[in-house]
Amino acid sequence: MVEIRRFLHMNPELSFKEVKTAEYIANFYKELGVDVRTGVGGNGVVATIKGDFPGPTVALRADFDALPIQDEKEVPYKSTVPGVMHACGHDGHTAALLVLAESFYRLKHELAGSIVLIHQHAEEYAPGGAISMIEDGCLDGVDAIFGTHLWASAPTGTIQYRVGPIMAAADRFEVTINGSGGHGAQPHKTKDSVVIGSQFVMNLQQIVSRKVDPTEPAVVSVGNFEAKNAFNVIADSATLVGTVRTFSEDVRDQIELEIENVLKGTCLTAGASYEYAFHRGYPAVVNHKAETELFVKAAEEISDVNDIEESALQMGGEDFAYYLQHVKGSFFFTGAKPEGVDVPYPHHHPKFDFNEKAMLIAAKTLGNAALAFQKEVSVEAVK
Amino acid sequence: MVEIRRFLHMNPELSFKEVKTAEYIANFYKELGVDVRTGVGGNGVVATIKGDFPGPTVALRADFDALPIQDEKEVPYKSTVPGVMHACGHDGHTAALLVLAESFYRLKHELAGSIVLIHQHAEEYAPGGAISMIEDGCLDGVDAIFGTHLWASAPTGTIQYRVGPIMAAADRFEVTINGSGGHGAQPHKTKDSVVIGSQFVMNLQQIVSRKVDPTEPAVVSVGNFEAKNAFNVIADSATLVGTVRTFSEDVRDQIELEIENVLKGTCLTAGASYEYAFHRGYPAVVNHKAETELFVKAAEEISDVNDIEESALQMGGEDFAYYLQHVKGSFFFTGAKPEGVDVPYPHHHPKFDFNEKAMLIAAKTLGNAALAFQKEVSVEAVK
Amino acid sequence: MVEIRRFLHMNPELSFKEVKTAEYIANFYKELGVDVRTGVGGNGVVATIKGDFPGPTVALRADFDALPIQDEKEVPYKSTVPGVMHACGHDGHTAALLVLAESFYRLKHELAGSIVLIHQHAEEYAPGGAISMIEDGCLDGVDAIFGTHLWASAPTGTIQYRVGPIMAAADRFEVTINGSGGHGAQPHKTKDSVVIGSQFVMNLQQIVSRKVDPTEPAVVSVGNFEAKNAFNVIADSATLVGTVRTFSEDVRDQIELEIENVLKGTCLTAGASYEYAFHRGYPAVVNHKAETELFVKAAEEISDVNDIEESALQMGGEDFAYYLQHVKGSFFFTGAKPEGVDVPYPHHHPKFDFNEKAMLIAAKTLGNAALAFQKEVSVEAVK
Amino acid sequence: MVEIRRFLHMNPELSFKEVKTAEYIANFYKELGVDVRTGVGGNGVVATIKGDFPGPTVALRADFDALPIQDEKEVPYKSTVPGVMHACGHDGHTAALLVLAESFYRLKHELAGSIVLIHQHAEEYAPGGAISMIEDGCLDGVDAIFGTHLWASAPTGTIQYRVGPIMAAADRFEVTINGSGGHGAQPHKTKDSVVIGSQFVMNLQQIVSRKVDPTEPAVVSVGNFEAKNAFNVIADSATLVGTVRTFSEDVRDQIELEIENVLKGTCLTAGASYEYAFHRGYPAVVNHKAETELFVKAAEEISDVNDIEESALQMGGEDFAYYLQHVKGSFFFTGAKPEGVDVPYPHHHPKFDFNEKAMLIAAKTLGNAALAFQKEVSVEAVK
Repeated sequence: MVEIRRFLHMNPELSFKEVKTAEYIANFYKELGVDVRTGVGGNGVVATIKGDFPGPTVALRADFDALPIQDEKEVPYKSTVPGVMHACGHDGHTAALLVLAESFYRLKHELAGSIVLIHQHAEEYAPGGAISMIEDGCLDGVDAIFGTHLWASAPTGTIQYRVGPIMAAADRFEVTINGSGGHGAQPHKTKDSVVIGSQFVMNLQQIVSRKVDPTEPAVVSVGNFEAKNAFNVIADSATLVGTVRTFSEDVRDQIELEIENVLKGTCLTAGASYEYAFHRGYPAVVNHKAETELFVKAAEEISDVNDIEESALQMGGEDFAYYLQHVKGSFFFTGAKPEGVDVPYPHHHPKFDFNEKAMLIAAKTLGNAALAFQKEVSVEAVK
Repeated sequence: MVEIRRFLHMNPELSFKEVKTAEYIANFYKELGVDVRTGVGGNGVVATIKGDFPGPTVALRADFDALPIQDEKEVPYKSTVPGVMHACGHDGHTAALLVLAESFYRLKHELAGSIVLIHQHAEEYAPGGAISMIEDGCLDGVDAIFGTHLWASAPTGTIQYRVGPIMAAADRFEVTINGSGGHGAQPHKTKDSVVIGSQFVMNLQQIVSRKVDPTEPAVVSVGNFEAKNAFNVIADSATLVGTVRTFSEDVRDQIELEIENVLKGTCLTAGASYEYAFHRGYPAVVNHKAETELFVKAAEEISDVNDIEESALQMGGEDFAYYLQHVKGSFFFTGAKPEGVDVPYPHHHPKFDFNEKAMLIAAKTLGNAALAFQKEVSVEAVK
Repeated sequence: MVEIRRFLHMNPELSFKEVKTAEYIANFYKELGVDVRTGVGGNGVVATIKGDFPGPTVALRADFDALPIQDEKEVPYKSTVPGVMHACGHDGHTAALLVLAESFYRLKHELAGSIVLIHQHAEEYAPGGAISMIEDGCLDGVDAIFGTHLWASAPTGTIQYRVGPIMAAADRFEVTINGSGGHGAQPHKTKDSVVIGSQFVMNLQQIVSRKVDPTEPAVVSVGNFEAKNAFNVIADSATLVGTVRTFSEDVRDQIELEIENVLKGTCLTAGASYEYAFHRGYPAVVNHKAETELFVKAAEEISDVNDIEESALQMGGEDFAYYLQHVKGSFFFTGAKPEGVDVPYPHHHPKFDFNEKAMLIAAKTLGNAALAFQKEVSVEAVK
Repeated sequence: MVEIRRFLHMNPELSFKEVKTAEYIANFYKELGVDVRTGVGGNGVVATIKGDFPGPTVALRADFDALPIQDEKEVPYKSTVPGVMHACGHDGHTAALLVLAESFYRLKHELAGSIVLIHQHAEEYAPGGAISMIEDGCLDGVDAIFGTHLWASAPTGTIQYRVGPIMAAADRFEVTINGSGGHGAQPHKTKDSVVIGSQFVMNLQQIVSRKVDPTEPAVVSVGNFEAKNAFNVIADSATLVGTVRTFSEDVRDQIELEIENVLKGTCLTAGASYEYAFHRGYPAVVNHKAETELFVKAAEEISDVNDIEESALQMGGEDFAYYLQHVKGSFFFTGAKPEGVDVPYPHHHPKFDFNEKAMLIAAKTLGNAALAFQKEVSVEAVK
């Protein structure tokens, strides 16, 4: 597993360009003798292992794209591709799933149902690979899905689960305020876009503080504010770019509307006009209750797992969200803090790394969850 | 003059209720044998002294109403009416004009033209007495008008003039923001009128800082902000009352509109509604150039006047403004700082008083201005 | 039970003045022959029923104070005390607990452990009765506590539970901004407390939107804003009163500090001074996990309970919070929506009422929770 | 005069680099036989014409630097230097002064006093040439100074004067707000410099609306607001650049302080730090009263001058301000609107041009002002 991971780590490919990685994965299955479909919704690879007994179909997913970051670690398995790096652990996800698939293949005579291995490309870059793989049939016939993310900030041996929302919807908005610039000597002949933009930012604070249900976590942040002028003193226009994080579609819809309300009113105050675009990223990852509870019980059986705890809400996004809109399932975090490190480098950092032992834990937990689901469904079927 | 002033000071009457004061003034003229018209546009009194020679008609004006303030001075001539006081010097204006009228009456055989003595009621309380007195003909046939205000903050012996605007238009606005109240627990179900009102106050600052020509003096102040709730935690509505001071009708009109723009936009931001009323007080007092210059020269001839200086713009209002919209003329300040006092009590203060010597200076300056005007017109007529 | 409730409803007493109600409760126990202690921490009444068998001690709590509200219902059991009313259902809590106590007393020969009946005065008015009753020993020897609130907005037959925080800490802050008033004509000689106050309100929004962890529910609301001036145009000072709702002590502490930071910075901007007081109300009600889960199982056994659901976070406060800081336990809501009513009058409304059938459900659920706890502890003891 | 102007127009030089222009000017005087001093305070040139009679010394000033603007006019005398252009009329100032000097030289036998011709380099670029020329003695022995600016927006034949301030002090401030950036998911772990910067801009509005005497014109404008982030979502720092325009040194000092007060308070609110720099440009041009009145009378005698009017306050800056801090004098505008043009291109525009007839008017008015001053001083001396 470590070997596979390190090979992938040394040969990272960017989102939507993971051609060789897809080939590598497909070859693994071919050599194993497992049915594999390539080019699923792009560079996606889907393998299916049918058990000898009838039963439900459980999908397990691992993503395999890397990031446009220069690897700054000093390790033998450092990235060989300048400016590209597996800085989020997707190499580990893939290695874990491949080795797990091999185990399932060996167990196929005992399996009651099928296991679908979804190797997804392009998780890091919207619109992501999940949508197109689903459209291309990767969930056809699937009864439940499980997935995990190696999590360097949690100790190795820890599993973090959560019923309901676990990761946020991450959206982006862009605003241009069209005032009218002019000489600083004559502010009354201008519509000062710096002032209008500032007023907009201040008013925006009320969306979270006043307009969203206080029990619903939400973030509205303006990350970029730019208003410049060349010759004159008062700027003509200001552009603001921001991000919105939510855990419910209702709040997401509400905030999209409220931002425009605030913008409209603020611009009206000054007689300025505006442009507004709200770009939806991935929706929130919302875990199903029964499958999450089943998964927690399955995780309790893994000897390497010392700690199973409820995850805090994570404000980051994940396109695993789409799978859970189609079939039941659960997404969890597998603690992967490097040994002997107090504060690990965060995901997406040029020196990011994880504890490779966590891959085995991830594989076992995913595998046990799949088996537990198949067992439960069979038991229910008997009833 | 001092005697008259002290009598009036002890017997003050409120604006629009100055019946006895009007009688007192009328009797003064009757005893003198001067033509006097009473009940002019209310409690106004107008006397006319015709000179033996032909010439222009010059009006001089003094107001005679008092204020709803309890006199707290310890002087023998303290107000005898509880809660009513001449706290702005109108008693002095009246005494000066009466004695001046007596002098003119005695000089009538030398006068080339007429002198109209306008004793105006109700200067302190909008809509003021000037409008109705003008409508009732007090300016008919008048060629120019002069008026003064005793000014306790300027040293006695000082005359302050200004060409163009000298005192501000003083308007009042009232705003009600109708949000919708509720429990502090559930701000998202309310429209928080405290926040909307605060946002309105902040945005209002831009009217002066950004929207009015910076060379045009203007003030927009919110003096009252009230938002209360009884049982619930978030207030239903907020009421704000403010004042606007301007020196040009264009800026005055602009600000009336801009306040509503700001209000409309701010309420739109929050989905609240509003009520808005802009109550116009007196317009700006705008002195005519030629008459002001003529007046300055006339003042230079008065021996008690040691200092003639340009007045700063005064943000207070005066309904003398209306006279100057109908005929040419000038309004000036007559320094009246009490002797031996560093920082005198301001006008409208319960302990306000002025130097009675200033009355004579006011009378002489007004009288000389009238004579100078008559002389100049005659000279021009000859040309 | 209905009889008791209606008697209490007709004879309500305000917080800290519940002398007769306390007597009534004490007499009930005395007539029953149960040990009762009166005057516990004020008007509190505590009765103890010892089972014949050894086992843990479980406390059940009901509050019994009324509110300063005029009863506007038209029912035979309407309040007979002008301006005082059981508008929050504490009469029902008391009736349920008394009848339940009677049942326990009859079952005492089968009981393995003791039941402590805590009849608490003064829940409605800070500092509340809970603290003083605890100090006076009402929890001595108690192993767990359960309590409920009749909840008119939830259908009768529904039980709402929640692990962890369920009701908010409700604190109050008062701010006075001392600017310096003056004439609207001369804003530059004043420190405008309306503008400073408005700026403070706007800046306050950032506490929730920027400074508190977005996954921590929090509310900061300014309910009152008052700035008035009599004679002058710019107000001298502004007073603002607000409420803070939080579910964690860390966030509560943080907000107390942040409000002052915002206030300090805002006043510094304008050179004004301020006064700030943060009055802590009840802390958050935080349910213990094991006891809540045990209680849920016990509730499932009650035939009148059709629906057990997770409660939303409630932003209201409850001094039951203090008991849970001392012993394990759980607080829950017992649905009590009146029959045939779509939208019931809210708690604290002059026409508030509840479905009296809910009292029996509350009694059974509390009773079953107590028994379940005693049973579990015994089982564990055996192990 | 037109010839000289066109030669200079075709050969413009940037501020502080006007070597050939200075040579050209110096040669003009040398050929004329007038004493000339070069290299005065840099590239400045000073010529002195002594009259045969004793009398006061009057200085006349013309600036001669050009701007970094590409000439886009289509005229025969278009700039021959790429990217450099006389886009503000300094070529005209110089031509007028040279020809005027020639006239004075011819009149020297009648002159009672001296004329100092100050040809100043570097008016367009702070710190300007005036300071160093004064330090280098160009005002030594000078009793009064006059200067003018050709003014394309006013009709040719118009002279605009103003007693007291006529052009603004133009200062520049730069602010950096050092918050601390981070992930949009975790605003509570950041100090959001976009929000702090916006709050600063909003609060800044109060300097003009509340803190500066409303009768003192002042402008505070933020022209640039930049806050960007690369990888994270909340920006680390924001930079704001603005301009301040004032007409009195007191207000100028006040605003420099108030900006920092606002900045300090705003940053304190958020726990952020800041950097603040206030760069003083030229002070306000403040005309002396007596010299301005004298100049107006002198201008009335010029037949080409049809209209003498009070100038509005001009918010632009001029380093003529420094001369008036050392000697008495007056600076005025000479209308120079091109013929047949309704809305002329503004100064500093690539297509800017002026009516060359205005140069003669400028020369005559300056010359007559100098003569009038010399005459008045002589008359007074006689008295």
